Amino acid sequence: MLTDEHALRVTLRSRPVAMPVLADFALEQTSIPQPAAGEVLVRTIYLSLDPYMRGRISSNELYETPVAIGETILGGTVGEVLQSRADGLAPGDFVLGMGGWQSHFVAHAADLTRLDPSHAPLSTALGVLGVPGFTGFAGLREIGKPQPGETVVVAAASGAVGTVVGRTARAAGARVVGIAGGAEKVSYLNDFGFDAAVDHRSPTFAADLAAAAPNGIDVYFENVGGAVWEAVMPLLNPFARIPVSGLVAHYNEDSSPSGVDRLGQFMRTLQMKRFTIRGFVQSDFVDTQWEAFQREVAGWIAGGSFDYREDIVTGLENAPQAFIGLLSGRNFGKLLVRVAAEETDVRHIV
Amino acid sequence: MLTDEHALRVTLRSRPVAMPVLADFALEQTSIPQPAAGEVLVRTIYLSLDPYMRGRISSNELYETPVAIGETILGGTVGEVLQSRADGLAPGDFVLGMGGWQSHFVAHAADLTRLDPSHAPLSTALGVLGVPGFTGFAGLREIGKPQPGETVVVAAASGAVGTVVGRTARAAGARVVGIAGGAEKVSYLNDFGFDAAVDHRSPTFAADLAAAAPNGIDVYFENVGGAVWEAVMPLLNPFARIPVSGLVAHYNEDSSPSGVDRLGQFMRTLQMKRFTIRGFVQSDFVDTQWEAFQREVAGWIAGGSFDYREDIVTGLENAPQAFIGLLSGRNFGKLLVRVAAEETDVRHIV
Repeated sequence: MLTDEHALRVTLRSRPVAMPVLADFALEQTSIPQPAAGEVLVRTIYLSLDPYMRGRISSNELYETPVAIGETILGGTVGEVLQSRADGLAPGDFVLGMGGWQSHFVAHAADLTRLDPSHAPLSTALGVLGVPGFTGFAGLREIGKPQPGETVVVAAASGAVGTVVGRTARAAGARVVGIAGGAEKVSYLNDFGFDAAVDHRSPTFAADLAAAAPNGIDVYFENVGGAVWEAVMPLLNPFARIPVSGLVAHYNEDSSPSGVDRLGQFMRTLQMKRFTIRGFVQSDFVDTQWEAFQREVAGWIAGGSFDYREDIVTGLENAPQAFIGLLSGRNFGKLLVRVAAEETDVRHIV
Repeated sequence: MLTDEHALRVTLRSRPVAMPVLADFALEQTSIPQPAAGEVLVRTIYLSLDPYMRGRISSNELYETPVAIGETILGGTVGEVLQSRADGLAPGDFVLGMGGWQSHFVAHAADLTRLDPSHAPLSTALGVLGVPGFTGFAGLREIGKPQPGETVVVAAASGAVGTVVGRTARAAGARVVGIAGGAEKVSYLNDFGFDAAVDHRSPTFAADLAAAAPNGIDVYFENVGGAVWEAVMPLLNPFARIPVSGLVAHYNEDSSPSGVDRLGQFMRTLQMKRFTIRGFVQSDFVDTQWEAFQREVAGWIAGGSFDYREDIVTGLENAPQAFIGLLSGRNFGKLLVRVAAEETDVRHIV
C-alpha cells in the first residue's frame, strides 16, 4: 500500500493575459490515485516543458481543446510504473506518456510507451528523441527538403528542435546557420557543428544574419516568428521552403499589432519568389518519418556526433517559473523538470 | 515585296503609378521588319492581355527584367507566318509566340510553336489551352491537389485561369465555388457547371461565400488577393492548400496599407491549421503537367463539356484601354485583342 504519501500537481488557476505569471498557476497536494483494471500508476521522473503549452492554456486555441481552469496542465512525461493492473507493464518499467504537470498519475497501458533505458538516456525521449526532435526532423525532411549546398536557417537553435534541425540539415549536405540568444548559446552552436551562428540579441542581428547566409536562405525552419522572421524574409531565395512549426514570439499576443499591414505584400512576394510555406504538427508525419527519425538520431547520439543539451530544473513546484522562462528563451537546451529521481525509492511500493 | 504597308506597335511611355492610364502607353507606326536568316516574319492575329503584364511594366518586378521605357510591351500572340527564312516554317503557318503588342514581328523559328488549326480554335492557344489555362491546371494539380468531396474556391472564375481551375477541380470530384464580379458572370458560372457562384461585388459577399462553402474551403486558388482573400481566410479548413498564381488586387500597390499588421497572426493561423501556401509560375510545372493538360483540356473542348468564354477587342490601338479594364475586372472571359483577321490578305505576300 502507498501510505502517508501525497501527490503534487500544478493546475491552471487563471488564463494568462499575454505573458503568463506565477499567479496563473496553482500547486496542489492530492492523494495518490489508484489504478483501475487495465491501468497503471506511474510516478513522474521528467516533465517536458514546451512552447506549445502556451497555446493550450489559451482560450483561443484552434486545433485542440484548451486546458480548463482548475485542471492539471498537460505535458509529456517520462515515468516509472509503480503499480500495474494492466498486461504488458510491470512495476519498474519506464514509460513515456502524457502525464502532465503532476508527480503521479494513472493511465491506460495503451496510452503509454515503454522505454528501454539502454537505448538512450531516458530524458531524450522528451527531447531530441521525442516530440521536439521529431518536429525538427520531420518538418525539415517533409517540407524543408534541404539539398546539398543549400542554406538552412533555424532559430531557437540550441533547443531540442533546433539542434535536430541543424544536425539533420548537415546530414543532408546543407550549410546550416543557427540563431540563438546570447554569446554562450552562440558558442555552443559553433561547437555543435553549425556552419555559422548568430545572436538575435545583437543590435546588428539582421546584418549578422545576412553575412552568415551570403548565398541567401533556401530553407527557414520557422519556430519563433517575430524579429527573427523579419530578418529572414528579405534573405529568402526563390523557391525557398518554410516549414512553420510554431511561433513562440506570437504566443502571448491577444491581438495583431498596429502599423503597416504587410500581409498583402508578403503574399505578393511569396508568389513572385515562389515560396512554399506550410504549417505542420509533428504528428502529421509519424507514418512517414518516425522510424527513420529514431534510427538516425539514436545513431548520432550513440556515435557521439550529436552533442545535444538539456536544461533540467529540479522540483515540480518550479515548473511554472521555468515555463515562463522558456517563453522568454531563458532555458539553454531542452527544458525538463526533474520531478523525482530516476532511482526507485522502494519504500513506496508494496 | 511588302509595299506601302506599315507595322503598328504599342510601347511603354511611362511607368504606371498605381492603376495604369492611357498616357502610360504610346501607339507607334513603324516599318515592317525583315527576317534575317533563320527567322520568320509573323503578322499578329491575336494578342493576349493578362494580369502578369502589370508586374512587367513596374520597376519593382522581382523575377523578370521589366519592359524598358520606349520598348514594345511584351505579350503572347497567335500569328501567321508571312515570310520564312527558317527551316520548318512556311508562309501560311500559324504560330504561337511572344510577339508582343505589335502587328508584325520577326522571330527565330525556335521561339515559335506551330499550331494546328484543326486541333482547337487558334485563339485558345492564348487562353484555356495556353499559359492561363495551364496556370490553372498545373497549380491546382501540383499544389491544390483536390480530393473527391473537398471544396475548391477560385476567384476571377469566368476567365481562362478560373474556368480551367473549375473544370479541373470538377474532374477531380471536388465541389467547386466560383467567384466573379456581377450578375452576368455569376449566371455564366452556374451554367458552366460550378456548384455555386458568388458575386464579389455584393455587399453580402463574405456571407454569401460562407453559405456557398458550408463545409469550409479545402483549396483556394489565389489569383486575386484583396477583399476575396479576406473573405476566404476565415473559411479555410485545416490542411487547406493555397496555390498562389497572382494577386491582381495588389499589382497597383506601391506600398503596404497601414492599419493592423496581420502577418504575424496569419502565420500563427497557418501553423495551427496546417495550411500549405505556395507561390508558383506555370513554367515551374511544364515538365510534369503540360502533356496531361493539352490532352485533357482539348478533350473537354472537343467533347463539348467546357464552355469557355473569350472577350475579344478589335484593333491593336484598343489594347491599352482593354488592359486597364482587365485590371478592374471589366473583361468577361479570356481577354484577347484581334490585331488582324485570321484570313490571310494575300496582297501582302510576295
